[in-house]
Amino acid sequence: MEKLRLAIIGCGIAARELHLPALKKLRDRIEIVALASRTREKAKRLSQMIEPEPRVFDTVDELMLSGIAEAVDLALPTILNPEFIEKALKCDLHVIAEKPIAINVENGKKVLALAKRSNKVLYIAENYRHIPVYKKACKMIASAEIGKPVFFFWKSTKEMKEKNKYAMTSWRKEPAHIAGFISDAGVHHIAAARTMLGDIEEVSAYLKRVRDYLGAEDTITMNLLFENGAIGNYIASYGLEFGNEISIIGTEGNMYIEGNKIKVFTAGSQKTMEAPNSDGFFEEFSDFYDVVKFGKENLLGSPAQALKDLTVIEAAVKSFRERELVKVARLLE
Amino acid sequence: MEKLRLAIIGCGIAARELHLPALKKLRDRIEIVALASRTREKAKRLSQMIEPEPRVFDTVDELMLSGIAEAVDLALPTILNPEFIEKALKCDLHVIAEKPIAINVENGKKVLALAKRSNKVLYIAENYRHIPVYKKACKMIASAEIGKPVFFFWKSTKEMKEKNKYAMTSWRKEPAHIAGFISDAGVHHIAAARTMLGDIEEVSAYLKRVRDYLGAEDTITMNLLFENGAIGNYIASYGLEFGNEISIIGTEGNMYIEGNKIKVFTAGSQKTMEAPNSDGFFEEFSDFYDVVKFGKENLLGSPAQALKDLTVIEAAVKSFRERELVKVARLLE
Repeated sequence: MEKLRLAIIGCGIAARELHLPALKKLRDRIEIVALASRTREKAKRLSQMIEPEPRVFDTVDELMLSGIAEAVDLALPTILNPEFIEKALKCDLHVIAEKPIAINVENGKKVLALAKRSNKVLYIAENYRHIPVYKKACKMIASAEIGKPVFFFWKSTKEMKEKNKYAMTSWRKEPAHIAGFISDAGVHHIAAARTMLGDIEEVSAYLKRVRDYLGAEDTITMNLLFENGAIGNYIASYGLEFGNEISIIGTEGNMYIEGNKIKVFTAGSQKTMEAPNSDGFFEEFSDFYDVVKFGKENLLGSPAQALKDLTVIEAAVKSFRERELVKVARLLE
Repeated sequence: MEKLRLAIIGCGIAARELHLPALKKLRDRIEIVALASRTREKAKRLSQMIEPEPRVFDTVDELMLSGIAEAVDLALPTILNPEFIEKALKCDLHVIAEKPIAINVENGKKVLALAKRSNKVLYIAENYRHIPVYKKACKMIASAEIGKPVFFFWKSTKEMKEKNKYAMTSWRKEPAHIAGFISDAGVHHIAAARTMLGDIEEVSAYLKRVRDYLGAEDTITMNLLFENGAIGNYIASYGLEFGNEISIIGTEGNMYIEGNKIKVFTAGSQKTMEAPNSDGFFEEFSDFYDVVKFGKENLLGSPAQALKDLTVIEAAVKSFRERELVKVARLLE
C-alpha cells in the first residue's frame, strides 16, 4: 500500500508540537507532502523540521487544487473549521480536523451535514478518544470491575498565566468558540467521560470568569446526568489551580485514573493497572490512516461524536446563561 | 450565677454520645436535672451515666409541667421537633433542639413562627456553626488571605453499611425528613459553607439512591451559586465512599481544610494553621448557656439560620425532582 499523501493546513502550536511528533512516527504510512499557513514564514519554518521537506504553498486554495495531497490535516483556529472543511471536501480531499468540530453547535451541525453529503472521510481529531488509559478504563467498567458505575467526578484545573502560549494565541484571547477554554479544552474531558460512561442526558452548570486576561469564563462546575443513570460532576478551571481528579465510583468499587494508571479499589482488594503512556496523537493518525486507506469504520473520529462532545459544553453554558437544566439531545434537534 | 437546670428529652445516640460528653464538661454551669424518653428504660440507663443522677419522668408532659427544669434539650427524631418545641415553649421552657430544625421547610417555617411568638430562647443545635476550624477559616477568608473567594468545593463521603448505628435508627430507615441523610447530615455541611462564604443564592442538583437499605437518596452533587458571586459544588454520599475534601479557592490563593487544620497556599508561600480540635458540642452548650443566662444574642443557634441551611438542601431536592435551578430565597417566601 502506498503512503497517504497528507498536507498540513495551519502551522501553529498544534501542528508543530502535537501532530508532527506523531506523524514522524508514522512516516512508513503517512508522508507530509505539503504545507500552508496564514503566514508563509510559519509554514516554511515547519517544513524545515520535516524530512523530506514538503512543498510550501502560498495559499490554501493553491494547495488544495494542486492535487499533491489526498488528505489534509486542518490544525486551525476552531472558527475556521467549517469553511476549510467544506473547501477540502469539495476538492475531493479526505480531512482530519482538530477539535472542537466548530465554535458552537449550530456551526457543528453544518459541518456534520457537509460530511454526510461527501464521500470523503471527515475525521475530527479528538485525541482523548485515543488515549489508551480511557479505553482501558472503558473496558474495565464494561466488565463490571466496579459493579454498576453510579457516580462520576472529574476535576481538571490548570491556571493559565497571562504569558501561557495557549492563552496568548490570538484566537484564544478573543474566543469566538463558546466560553473559550471551557469548550476548547472541555470537549477533551467530555469525550473521555463519554468514552467511559456513555452519553450524557442532561446538565446544569455555573461558570465564572476569574481572570480578566482570559477571553471568556475560565471556571465551570457542571452537574451531569448520564443516560445509564449515573450522576456526576465536572469541575474545570483555567483561571484557578487546585488539583486534578478522575473518579468513577461503582456499586462494588472505586476507580481512579491518574496519568496512565488506573487504580481500582473493591472490598478487600486493590490493584493498579497501567495503560501505554500516550497523548493519543499517534493512535489518532494511525486510525485516520486505516479509515482512509482500508475503509475502517470512522468511530473514533466521527463528526457526530465530536458534535455531541461540544453539545454537552454548549448545554452547560446554556444552563448557566438561561438558568435552567438542559437536555443535551434537545440542542441537537 | 446559679446553674442552668436542663432536662434532656430523647435519650438516644445524640443525647448519649454527642450531648452528654459536652454537658459533663459544663457541669459548673449546667445541671442535668431530668430525663424523659419514649421508652423509660432508655432514660433510666442514661440517668445512671450522670452524676448527680437526674430524675427520670414517665412522660415528656409530666417533665415539662413539673417545673423542675428551666430549659430542655430536645434530642429527638427530626419529625418530632415542631410538636415538642411548641410544647416546651408553651411550658415556659427555653429550648435547645437538634438540627435539622424540621423535616422540611414548610414545617421549619412553623417552628420559626413559634420562636418569634415566644419570649423564651429557641436554640437550634447546629454543632458545625461552633466547630473552631470553620470559624477560623471564616476569619481568614474575611481578611482576604486567599484574595477574593471565587470557588468552593466540598466532598463528604461515608458509606453507611447496613448495620451502621445511624443507618439502623428506625426514623432514619424510613425517613420523614427530606432525602434522608442528605438533609440530616447535609445541613451540617451547608451550615459550615455558609459560615465561611455567606448565603447561597441558587442551586441545582442531581440525587441518586445507591443503597436500597438506606431509606432515601444517599448521594448528591449540588452546584452552588453564592450571593458573593462565588460558585461551587457540593458532593455528598452515604452510599459510596470516595474521599473527603474542603477547598476554598480565591483569586490569590487556595485554602484546604483537613480536620482541624487549615492549609493556605499563595504565590510562593504556604502555611498550616491549626484550630482547637472540637466537634463543637461543648461550644454549643456553652453558647446556649450564655444566651439563656446572660441574654447574649442568639446568632449561632438562630432558628432562622438553621432554616436557611435546610432550605438549601430542599432547594437542591426540588431542583432534582422538578428539573430546574432553584433560588433558595424563593422557598422562604
